[in-house]
Amino acid sequence: MLTLNEYRTMANEEIAAIAYPKSPKGLYEPITYTMDLGGKRLRPALVLMACDAFGGDPKKALKAAVGLELFHNFTLLHDDVMDKADVRRGKPTVHRCWNENTAILSGDAMLTMASQYVAQVDAAVLPAVMELFNRTAMEVYEGQQYDMDFEVRVNVTIDEYIEMIRLKTSVLLGCACKMGALIAGAPAEKAQALYEAGVCLGLAFQLQDDVLDVWGDEATFGKAIGGDIMNNKKTFLLISAIQNANEDDEIELRRWLTDAYALRTEKVPAITALYERMGLREAAEKAIRHYNDLALEALKKAELTEEAHQSFVKFIEGLMGRKK
Amino acid sequence: MLTLNEYRTMANEEIAAIAYPKSPKGLYEPITYTMDLGGKRLRPALVLMACDAFGGDPKKALKAAVGLELFHNFTLLHDDVMDKADVRRGKPTVHRCWNENTAILSGDAMLTMASQYVAQVDAAVLPAVMELFNRTAMEVYEGQQYDMDFEVRVNVTIDEYIEMIRLKTSVLLGCACKMGALIAGAPAEKAQALYEAGVCLGLAFQLQDDVLDVWGDEATFGKAIGGDIMNNKKTFLLISAIQNANEDDEIELRRWLTDAYALRTEKVPAITALYERMGLREAAEKAIRHYNDLALEALKKAELTEEAHQSFVKFIEGLMGRKK
Repeated sequence: MLTLNEYRTMANEEIAAIAYPKSPKGLYEPITYTMDLGGKRLRPALVLMACDAFGGDPKKALKAAVGLELFHNFTLLHDDVMDKADVRRGKPTVHRCWNENTAILSGDAMLTMASQYVAQVDAAVLPAVMELFNRTAMEVYEGQQYDMDFEVRVNVTIDEYIEMIRLKTSVLLGCACKMGALIAGAPAEKAQALYEAGVCLGLAFQLQDDVLDVWGDEATFGKAIGGDIMNNKKTFLLISAIQNANEDDEIELRRWLTDAYALRTEKVPAITALYERMGLREAAEKAIRHYNDLALEALKKAELTEEAHQSFVKFIEGLMGRKK
Repeated sequence: MLTLNEYRTMANEEIAAIAYPKSPKGLYEPITYTMDLGGKRLRPALVLMACDAFGGDPKKALKAAVGLELFHNFTLLHDDVMDKADVRRGKPTVHRCWNENTAILSGDAMLTMASQYVAQVDAAVLPAVMELFNRTAMEVYEGQQYDMDFEVRVNVTIDEYIEMIRLKTSVLLGCACKMGALIAGAPAEKAQALYEAGVCLGLAFQLQDDVLDVWGDEATFGKAIGGDIMNNKKTFLLISAIQNANEDDEIELRRWLTDAYALRTEKVPAITALYERMGLREAAEKAIRHYNDLALEALKKAELTEEAHQSFVKFIEGLMGRKK
C-alpha cells in the first residue's frame, strides 16, 4: 500500500497527462482550466487505494480514477452555472471567465470524457463498472435537484436533508471505493461494504462542512465563515433550528431569514449564538461521530488486510480531522 | 428485414416503456416531456435496421437504439438553452416551460441515461460500443462549438462548414449505423462502411435542410421559410454567397446582413433572389447529390444482402425525397 499523498500524486500525474485536443479551443480550454484548478483529488485517491487494498494493481485503476475526478469537476462546473457562483477554488468560475454556453457545453464534454476514462477498465469488469458509474451519476443529479427544491421549501426534515447529501455528495465517495474494489476483482459483498464505508464517510464529511461554515477557522477553512448563514442555506443546523425552535427562537430566526439587508457582522453572530443556545453544535457533532462510526463499521465488513484497513482508517481520520 | 415504420414503432414502444423514477419530479418530468415530443426516431431506426441487416436480432439492439435517441434529445435540449430557442417540435422548450437550471440538469441526466441504455449491449461488444458512443458524443460537442464559433466569424469556408455539420449532425447517423452493425457482430470493415454511409447521408440531409429553409414548402417543412436567412445563419448558401459575391452582390449582401431591422417580407425574397442569381440553389443541390452518391457507394462496401441493401437504399431515398 502507498500513502494517501502517493495515490494523489499518481492521480495528479495522470490528470496532467490528459491529452486534450487542440481545437475547438472554446470547448477544451475551459476543461483544462477546470482540471488545472486543483483540488484534493480525494475521489481518484480512493479508487486507487481501494484497488490496491484488494490486491489489484492501482495502475489498472488509474484511468477510471481520473474519470471520477472529471465527473466530480463536471458537476462543480454545472452547479456553479446553476448557483451563479463567481468563484471556485479562488479563481473565477468558467461561466464568468467565458460565458454560460461555454460552461454548459464544456461540462457536457467533461461528462463524456469522464465516461471515456471510466470505460477504460478491463473488459471483464466493464459492465459492472459502467453500471455503478452511471447509477451514481443519476443519484448525484437527483441530489442536486433536491438541493434546489429545498431552497424554496420551508418544511425540510433532517431525514430528507441526509438523503439529499447522501445523493449529492456521498454516493460518489462510495462509488470511488467500490469502483477500485471491482477493478481489483474483489468479491461483491466486500466491494459493497467498502461502498457503504465511502457513503458514510461522505455524510460525516458533509455534516462537518456544515459545522465548519459556522465554527471553522477562516484561514484554514479556505472560505469566509458564515456563508451558509448569509445564504439561508438549509444545512443540518438551520433545519434543526427551524424544527426545534421555541416560540422566541422562532421569531428571531424568522426575522433573520426574511431580512434581505441583514449585515453579515450582525446576522452571523446572532444565528451562531442561537445555534449554540439550542445545543445544535453538539447535535451536529454527535451526528458526525455517528456516521464516522458507521463508516468504520462498514470498513470492517470489507475484511481488508490489516495494512489496507489501517490505510482507510488513516484516510478517514485525516479527512475528519481536517480544519478545512 | 422490417420496414422503416416497423423499426420506428419498435423504437417508440421501447421509448414509451422507459421507467422514469417518480421523484424528484423537477429532474424527471422535463425528460419525459422531451421524449414525448416525438420526432422521426431516425437514429434508433438506423440502429435496429443495421443490426438486422447484418443478421443480428434487432431486439438485442433496442436498448442501445433508445440510448442514441436519448442522446440526440439531450443535445437538442442543451442546444435550445444555448440558442435561447423558445419552441421545439411546436411546443415550448424545457427552459421556457421550467427554467434554465432545470434544462441544464435534466439534460445532464438524459446524457447519463443515454449511456445507461447504450451500455446494455452484450458484454462482448460493450467496449467497442462505448468507445464509439463516447467518441461520437465528443464530436457532436465539437460540432456545436464550431457552430457557435462560426456565428462570430466572417471568413468561414465551405470546407469548414462541411466539417462542422459532419461533427454536429452527421457522425451520429454514422454512429447509429455502426452501433447496430457492431451489436450484430459484423466484421469491422463492413461496420465502418455502414458508418461512412450514415455520415454521408447526414451531410446530404443537413445540406438539404439548408435548401428547404429557402425553397421548401412551409406547410410540409414544418417551420417558417427563411429562418436561416433572418438569423444570418452561416449555411452552405450564405457561406457560398459571401465567398463568391461580385462587388454589387457583396454590397447588397452586407446591407442585409447588417440591417437588424430588416423586414422578413423584404429580406427573405431579396436574399433568395441573390442566391438564385448566383446559381447557389444548383450548387447546393449538386453537393447534396454528391453526398447522396457517396452514401450509396459506402453502402455497397458494406456488402449487405440484396434485401438489406434495398432497405437502406429506400431509407436514403425516403429521407432525401422529403419535403420537410
